Amino acid sequence: MSTTTPDLPAFVARHVGPRDEDVATMLEVVGRASLADLVDTAVPGGIRGTESLGIEPAASEAAVLEELRQVAARNRRVTSMIGLGYYGTLTPAVIQRNVLENPAWYTAYTPYQPEISQGRLEALLNFQTVVSDLTGLPVAGASLLDEATAAAEAMTLMRRSSKAPSDAVLLVDREVFPQTLAVVRTRAVPLHLPVVVADLTGVTTAQALREAAGGAEVFGVLVQYPAMDGTLHDLSALTGAAHEAGALVTAAADLLALTLATPPGEWGADVAVGTTQRFGVPMGFGGPHAGYMSVRPGLERTMPGRLVGVSVDAEGAPAYRLALQTREQHIRREKATSNICTAQVLLAVMAAMYAVYHGPSGLRGIALGVHAHAEALRTALVAGGVDVTGGPVFDTLRVRVPGRAREVVDAALATGVNLWLVDDDTVQLSVDETTGLVELGRVAKAFGVTAPEQVPVATPRWGDALVRTSPYLTHPVFSAHHSETSMLRYLRRLADRDFALDRGMIPLGSCTMKLNATTEMVAVTWPEFAHVHPFAPHEQTRGIRGLVDELSRWLCEITGYDAVSLQPNAGSQGELAGLLAIAAYHRSRGDEQRTVCLIPSSAHGTNAASAVMAGLRVVVVKTDPVTGNVDMDDLAAKVEQHRETLAAIMVTYPSTHGVFEDTITDLCAMVHDAGGQVYVDGANLNALVGVARPGRFGADVSHLNLHKTFCIPHGGGGPGVGPVACRAHLAPHLPNHPLDELAGPAGGVGPVSAAPYGSASILPISWAYVRLMGGAGLRRATEVAVLNANYVAARLREHYPVLYSGQDGLVAHECILDLRGITKDTGVTVDDVAKRLIDYGFHAPTMSFPVAGTLMVEPTESEDKGELDRFCDAMIAIRREIDEVGSGAVTAAESVLRGAPHTAEALAGAWEHPYDRRTAAFPDGVDPAAKYWPPVRRIDGAYGDRHLVCSCPAPEAFED
Amino acid sequence: MSTTTPDLPAFVARHVGPRDEDVATMLEVVGRASLADLVDTAVPGGIRGTESLGIEPAASEAAVLEELRQVAARNRRVTSMIGLGYYGTLTPAVIQRNVLENPAWYTAYTPYQPEISQGRLEALLNFQTVVSDLTGLPVAGASLLDEATAAAEAMTLMRRSSKAPSDAVLLVDREVFPQTLAVVRTRAVPLHLPVVVADLTGVTTAQALREAAGGAEVFGVLVQYPAMDGTLHDLSALTGAAHEAGALVTAAADLLALTLATPPGEWGADVAVGTTQRFGVPMGFGGPHAGYMSVRPGLERTMPGRLVGVSVDAEGAPAYRLALQTREQHIRREKATSNICTAQVLLAVMAAMYAVYHGPSGLRGIALGVHAHAEALRTALVAGGVDVTGGPVFDTLRVRVPGRAREVVDAALATGVNLWLVDDDTVQLSVDETTGLVELGRVAKAFGVTAPEQVPVATPRWGDALVRTSPYLTHPVFSAHHSETSMLRYLRRLADRDFALDRGMIPLGSCTMKLNATTEMVAVTWPEFAHVHPFAPHEQTRGIRGLVDELSRWLCEITGYDAVSLQPNAGSQGELAGLLAIAAYHRSRGDEQRTVCLIPSSAHGTNAASAVMAGLRVVVVKTDPVTGNVDMDDLAAKVEQHRETLAAIMVTYPSTHGVFEDTITDLCAMVHDAGGQVYVDGANLNALVGVARPGRFGADVSHLNLHKTFCIPHGGGGPGVGPVACRAHLAPHLPNHPLDELAGPAGGVGPVSAAPYGSASILPISWAYVRLMGGAGLRRATEVAVLNANYVAARLREHYPVLYSGQDGLVAHECILDLRGITKDTGVTVDDVAKRLIDYGFHAPTMSFPVAGTLMVEPTESEDKGELDRFCDAMIAIRREIDEVGSGAVTAAESVLRGAPHTAEALAGAWEHPYDRRTAAFPDGVDPAAKYWPPVRRIDGAYGDRHLVCSCPAPEAFED
Repeated sequence: MSTTTPDLPAFVARHVGPRDEDVATMLEVVGRASLADLVDTAVPGGIRGTESLGIEPAASEAAVLEELRQVAARNRRVTSMIGLGYYGTLTPAVIQRNVLENPAWYTAYTPYQPEISQGRLEALLNFQTVVSDLTGLPVAGASLLDEATAAAEAMTLMRRSSKAPSDAVLLVDREVFPQTLAVVRTRAVPLHLPVVVADLTGVTTAQALREAAGGAEVFGVLVQYPAMDGTLHDLSALTGAAHEAGALVTAAADLLALTLATPPGEWGADVAVGTTQRFGVPMGFGGPHAGYMSVRPGLERTMPGRLVGVSVDAEGAPAYRLALQTREQHIRREKATSNICTAQVLLAVMAAMYAVYHGPSGLRGIALGVHAHAEALRTALVAGGVDVTGGPVFDTLRVRVPGRAREVVDAALATGVNLWLVDDDTVQLSVDETTGLVELGRVAKAFGVTAPEQVPVATPRWGDALVRTSPYLTHPVFSAHHSETSMLRYLRRLADRDFALDRGMIPLGSCTMKLNATTEMVAVTWPEFAHVHPFAPHEQTRGIRGLVDELSRWLCEITGYDAVSLQPNAGSQGELAGLLAIAAYHRSRGDEQRTVCLIPSSAHGTNAASAVMAGLRVVVVKTDPVTGNVDMDDLAAKVEQHRETLAAIMVTYPSTHGVFEDTITDLCAMVHDAGGQVYVDGANLNALVGVARPGRFGADVSHLNLHKTFCIPHGGGGPGVGPVACRAHLAPHLPNHPLDELAGPAGGVGPVSAAPYGSASILPISWAYVRLMGGAGLRRATEVAVLNANYVAARLREHYPVLYSGQDGLVAHECILDLRGITKDTGVTVDDVAKRLIDYGFHAPTMSFPVAGTLMVEPTESEDKGELDRFCDAMIAIRREIDEVGSGAVTAAESVLRGAPHTAEALAGAWEHPYDRRTAAFPDGVDPAAKYWPPVRRIDGAYGDRHLVCSCPAPEAFED
Repeated sequence: MSTTTPDLPAFVARHVGPRDEDVATMLEVVGRASLADLVDTAVPGGIRGTESLGIEPAASEAAVLEELRQVAARNRRVTSMIGLGYYGTLTPAVIQRNVLENPAWYTAYTPYQPEISQGRLEALLNFQTVVSDLTGLPVAGASLLDEATAAAEAMTLMRRSSKAPSDAVLLVDREVFPQTLAVVRTRAVPLHLPVVVADLTGVTTAQALREAAGGAEVFGVLVQYPAMDGTLHDLSALTGAAHEAGALVTAAADLLALTLATPPGEWGADVAVGTTQRFGVPMGFGGPHAGYMSVRPGLERTMPGRLVGVSVDAEGAPAYRLALQTREQHIRREKATSNICTAQVLLAVMAAMYAVYHGPSGLRGIALGVHAHAEALRTALVAGGVDVTGGPVFDTLRVRVPGRAREVVDAALATGVNLWLVDDDTVQLSVDETTGLVELGRVAKAFGVTAPEQVPVATPRWGDALVRTSPYLTHPVFSAHHSETSMLRYLRRLADRDFALDRGMIPLGSCTMKLNATTEMVAVTWPEFAHVHPFAPHEQTRGIRGLVDELSRWLCEITGYDAVSLQPNAGSQGELAGLLAIAAYHRSRGDEQRTVCLIPSSAHGTNAASAVMAGLRVVVVKTDPVTGNVDMDDLAAKVEQHRETLAAIMVTYPSTHGVFEDTITDLCAMVHDAGGQVYVDGANLNALVGVARPGRFGADVSHLNLHKTFCIPHGGGGPGVGPVACRAHLAPHLPNHPLDELAGPAGGVGPVSAAPYGSASILPISWAYVRLMGGAGLRRATEVAVLNANYVAARLREHYPVLYSGQDGLVAHECILDLRGITKDTGVTVDDVAKRLIDYGFHAPTMSFPVAGTLMVEPTESEDKGELDRFCDAMIAIRREIDEVGSGAVTAAESVLRGAPHTAEALAGAWEHPYDRRTAAFPDGVDPAAKYWPPVRRIDGAYGDRHLVCSCPAPEAFED
């Protein structure tokens, strides 16, 4: 047995928590001789790989940063005035440093435990208020993935809400952004939703609308506002016509324009979607940014994604939490409104804080400045005899230069400015808040006209009907923090309310909350990565493209697949892309009838929701109640039953029960024999890296979660990156992109994200992780992840039954603690334990997934023995507290468990509990000098769903 | 009256707290018609300037960052192997992001209020432990300014502690760094301490020692360990000889070498000094870095600077606080051990955390790696026939290349490496932790020898007597946080214990705790500024030198002086430099007898301490007990009395009482008439910028505090920058530097800091501040600083007498609340109020300075009306609590004031106070969700001084 690791890269000892000597101790507790012995026993021999990963030897942190600097230097910094949904913006430095670069914000998890998430929930409520105020629609969600996927979500929302016949079409105005249209098409195909593109200018009657739709009925209309060519159209008549025709209307709207232009909600739109990128979030070669959706009253329960609402805590005080979760895939599975899970929380927080920092008059000032610069440029062009087309605009000019568009674009580039080549005769450009006279001068020169010498103060130059008169951002939070000092303190106050990885372990099964090392994060905010437009010419993006290629190659090596697409900007989108590839593969072979997707009952809810979105029919396969494994007999029966129509099986490996099922190879063979494809959900890849490769043990396709296994931080609920990886036969059916021929196969399924490479600006994080760990380090991480989970299982097994295990009682990288017996005997619930853990200074494990009444613990390799012991000690202490209820010494209702979590404020007040204050707040093992205080007591979620409030409550709500 | 400010740069509204509408309201409370009216009334007409500041128009934050990028690009990145006390080092990314770039650390103040400073006090105790463990001397202070000034402090310490006769000399080995020797000389001259430089190799008897000293008695010996040429000498015999001769021995020692080499404390040194730069703090063109000093038992009470020690709080729990403050200048004035106030806390924290991160075996590994690389290079050079001189070395090689040293240095530079040209025949170089085979290859090539192909693992290649065998860093903290996750959480836990500007106002009179804007901070960590050696060739440092020149010009414009030196790396050093210039000026005119320095009784203690260090004799001038102003009659008498010997007067303007004295012009004239010079302490410059210029209203010289007025953050007690500015006649006597002819006048007084430009790497902060504000913005800041102080005075005057005011009852930029009557009547002290403010969520104002029994409040311009009101409301509420004592309802001893501050833990325990828990912890106005909790109760400082413990206490100390 050897636990010394002289041959591992130095960074491995920084990433992996337990020291070598701790590993030895822990192996003893687990009862294995070595890490190799542990893994050899836990992982079935049939799938274990024997070769080392073919990845370059690891480099030191300093060397990796230097390599990244060289990568960055291969990008060329050009001022992009391309627009099309991506604009230059100024990230306030105080927000960059204290949100984007602050682990208190970026290492947080999705706010499922609202009592320890009040800070980011308030930030997200600000986001929702910004969106609903600016769009004029009362209910906004807490971010979607990007504008294009938000539009696709709006399509299905409109389909669900429209009474139009089932063959009705989605009517899309021709001046919608091309990437939006393309994603909508990708998503419409499997759902058999016809999409018709038409010029909707001048459509003012239901009749004209149907004519524009080629005579079809219409369930929804999608327009861009302002239109792609920049024009601000009055769309009220079109909207009236759509409503008359039984269709809903979605506006893909620019929030900055809405500070000046009449918002969609005021001209009748049912839904608004878009991006909040230009609210202080760098373009980043396409992402991540927070997409948004807001809806009119009555549509809130059919909205996709997360929604923050106001409820009350045990003291009756206002408290925030996620609302209406019954809409979501983790509850409704294939009947959910969407498969979206990860959102873009960190970016939504940034955008919300941008609005807090500038306030309504500041935003209006920025918008007026943008508009003024656009108008100054228009004046200069027109004065120079150049033909600027279209009507009144906010920020975008489309310019006709017959025969010399390419020449103009090249001339602009020569001065360091990217314009957009529409066609041989047409150039388009967008002004943003970074545009100054210098840039206008360069553009004017490219067109051969005299540069504007000044920018007159502008007022909106469009018809009164489209001049916004309604107020927005009137809540005090948008006026209180305009000095940097005040902003800084607001950000700190919110961060302090939350529990993130920088305070302690977040042992969430299936979520892999591991270290997000600083060196991995550093490059994200470098200007060479941050300020790149996703549609910039290839020669400007050699650095990031090279990084994408290298990361893709490594991911193929790690997973054993042949091809990968980094485009999906969340796991859910990777899942969809993988299933679309399977469906396209069957179609390409003439097997259109193969539409059945087998899914074990223990699967992530997202699996089923994604399958439906991919046009598949979900058939559930039983799992064995004792072992948790897929019921192979039931599987055989279902395969047989659907042999002709079998498209795929979706399984997670190791299973969602945290077990390496030794039937996996049989399972793959059985499905393949029936002509089906095997989809392995990569959620649990952290148990496999360097040990086994899905692409080699029988799977055809997987999505990965770079924000789990590959160290992209969770950001409080996003960003995520969900690449899809597959074997060669599926590779021709991966996503591609209409504006970037390098971003996927020519015959692919179309884009699943707005940007060619999805959330490209955060890929350096995963790249750096692999580069720092090397093949041996990655394997070591896996080994220790398995060790840590088995150590927790070994220590807790006598206090809580460990549900499911594999060979020799070993679990994989997570373990399920079964509280059902405890609950039955004592009335103490998993919720009670989860909330009591807050008093002990922990984020709860995953609750009631995959089995109701259980807690699933995934420590990851980054937690050291000290923290694991602190957690186990807390769980054991809680077990003693449960036993007091069990013995009848106290009722569950009066117990310290039900009273949890306890706030400092509660300590100061009258005390009517049977336990004392110290027991409540400082139980054994809690260091008073390191105590985390939740700002609220236990939250009543149902109250909030009954009394739905999803924007910032008035300050009076917080008065006693 | 106009309060709109359309013509001010946008950043001004971010830097200045009150909004325009608040300014109007506040002016009403203060009773002035406008800001101009306020300033015109408060500031005597005789000194007010009428012209605008001649500074370039302000630029936006984005533009300033772009300009800084261009400045950075003019520095050339070269690998410096120059050594001489400055070495390449790798700052762990987790420390850079979470300490150096984290406002919770960098915006904190000096830990004078220990209850709210436990985090950084623990970090500093770690620092002291690192220094004392590695040097083998039991008591180390919490950082000095740099190695050279630490050596100068050691000189005076040795003089104080030696019984040698008054004409005894300081004997300095010839292989001490040249900048250290130069600073020692600068400091020795005014104290009439003879300095003799000699080759001390082979000196083993007292007799030989005196011979080396030219026959003189010796009070102290200063050696470099390892010596400048790299050699590790066994100095035990020398030390024995020195002790026999009645001298003390100081070793300027390299901490990294001490992980392998026998530490000074083990071979008999009395004092060790040095820098901790290579413990993770970038070279930064010379600073800032933390200097250190440690001493043998018995010398601790004569040590200069701050010392952290362990004491107990009101519950008897261990708690940290500054120890033995009775040694310091703010108490002992001219009898203090040193004038040092600001230390290098932020950098000391970084160095300590570098040791925590690496631990003893990690540090030893780094040292062995450095040594191995040096030995590999030596082997290659020798094999190539090159003459490497000297004995066994740790990291530095001195190489003889007769006649071609310049050629070798140039050849190395051509490959991107700086070597050090000793003379025409000699080159020297130092290896550091960033040196790899690539760098060795470049050096070998420059010398024309074959490059080493590998670096054999080395053990120390020197005699056993110098091989360290004693353990170090055995305290658990140095072994507990070696994973990044653990390190991150440790940093967060410590930061959370402290109250800094990111949580709330720090209204410290005389300290100017204003916004340190993120944009100002950003460039500090850019590699182009961070990795520059202070002795790098000028052509590599054009960017930072240009910035220094521009900032110097602006500071002259702002102060009305003709010349400035940015070299002093703390206000105290600027003060010393200014007084040295005055003394040199008088000498240059044959007025050697002018040695009397008049100092008002209300002056900062530092003034007197600095005067003594400059060789001046302090004569105190009375201040009027009613007005607080300098007693002009007493001044006239003192001037008359010392007319022939008058060197200078030192005054602070506006006064330390926070008043614009209208006698300032008379005062200047009176002193000038008598042939004296006027020194205006720039501590309160924040009340003058853009309004009045000391250099124009009669002063001859001032030091400024860039860490006050010009936005360098206080860093928890440093770094500071204290430029000295003067009129033309004093300019020839400013500091200069032996290794940089551009760094000062040829005939100057010598260096006062180790590096030519002091703390050059943080000068971009002040540069950015001026650039962002422009002249009009700077004036606006001053106006609002004065408004804010007067607003607080106006709101609090009826609750606490405001001591001293000027014209129409106006104060300057701070106000003194007189609690002496309250204390007399009720027994409630300023300490009680200060600690009670913690419960309300505030840092206390300055206590008992300049008048015992008072609180001095300086809000600065960056606090907005909301925060000012929160503070005033808290002070008014505290006054009501005092009144309860006054009315006899409760005794002072039992009052909530004396019980303060209250911890959360105290709330959870038994409660035996006459007030309830809510009153204690959540008094009116405290938002429970934003509550700051001190980790300890009131600390008993005297206990700790009686039981001095100045390194990390064992964990058992914290058990209940």
